[in-house]
Amino acid sequence: MKDKTFPQCPFEPLRHSFLSRDDEFFMKLAYNQALKAWEEGEVPVGAVIEYGGDVVAQAHNMVETLQDPTAHAEILAITQAAKNIGDWRLNGSTLYVTKEPCPMCSGAIVMGRVSRVVFGAPDPKMGFMGGAAKFHEMSGLNHKTIVADLVLKDECVNLIKTYFLLKRKLSNNQTPTEQDDELCS
Amino acid sequence: MKDKTFPQCPFEPLRHSFLSRDDEFFMKLAYNQALKAWEEGEVPVGAVIEYGGDVVAQAHNMVETLQDPTAHAEILAITQAAKNIGDWRLNGSTLYVTKEPCPMCSGAIVMGRVSRVVFGAPDPKMGFMGGAAKFHEMSGLNHKTIVADLVLKDECVNLIKTYFLLKRKLSNNQTPTEQDDELCS
Repeated sequence: MKDKTFPQCPFEPLRHSFLSRDDEFFMKLAYNQALKAWEEGEVPVGAVIEYGGDVVAQAHNMVETLQDPTAHAEILAITQAAKNIGDWRLNGSTLYVTKEPCPMCSGAIVMGRVSRVVFGAPDPKMGFMGGAAKFHEMSGLNHKTIVADLVLKDECVNLIKTYFLLKRKLSNNQTPTEQDDELCS
Repeated sequence: MKDKTFPQCPFEPLRHSFLSRDDEFFMKLAYNQALKAWEEGEVPVGAVIEYGGDVVAQAHNMVETLQDPTAHAEILAITQAAKNIGDWRLNGSTLYVTKEPCPMCSGAIVMGRVSRVVFGAPDPKMGFMGGAAKFHEMSGLNHKTIVADLVLKDECVNLIKTYFLLKRKLSNNQTPTEQDDELCS
């Protein structure tokens, strides 16, 4: 349920060049998905999956819209990609997401055999691919997912920090606190 | 895609008494869901969610049927329960599942604010609620999920062990190895 009093997203979509389909190209698409999430009253996180050079999934967080705690951008993108590829094993794919995956999504990424993950904003509290834990490096996993360097970090951190800062300010009617700096650092 | 050469499920559904809606009652329903999964060519795992004394979700693993790596019994049950309750926050609910939740599902359980989890077969390799890790006890989580004692352990362990034993035997044309005993102990 969208809160109509919540500020509109102040960020502009990022323009991507079609000349170079590099990590930045795909991450810009993910970022633009995150902006959609904001406009729909969701925590702004977006994800894109690339497979064989093509975009096989684009999704954004829909927990509030669908009233489903599993409807994170990554989960929706993985389901979409598997459908498009016709196989639940996503070997060879790269998942781009604006914020470091949470435990649920990190599990889904490894379980879905995604080959590579690129994210924008690290999450030291709940990120399971380098922040709070390195789940992908856990021994005993039957699939190896590579976590690449951060891409569009500043833009992605700024987006999610601004969102939570505004949210906290509005709900507590408080000025921003030190906590705001802990979100993504 | 169901493998028609794979043996039919040799186990009978468990009968439950409606006189006592205790943990065993709900776990029997979850177990019967797991049998359905077997019959549909899936790894036999079933899940049920109880809320206010009622069953608000019953699901079984559908990874192969839906070709979706996120379609574990718990994820499907959480989505179903949230829809039935009309809120993605499942506070007050208990999730019953025949096998200890994997990292993805453990994340979904905590994220979906499930209050209590009961499982049958422990999973020392990939279980994230006591087996390989105790995710629910991680510091910094904003929701506390209680993991209860095992219920119907023998039946649930026997079911999943038998399944993997037959699967390995058929695919490798080998006799069972020591590995079979490592699955759930």
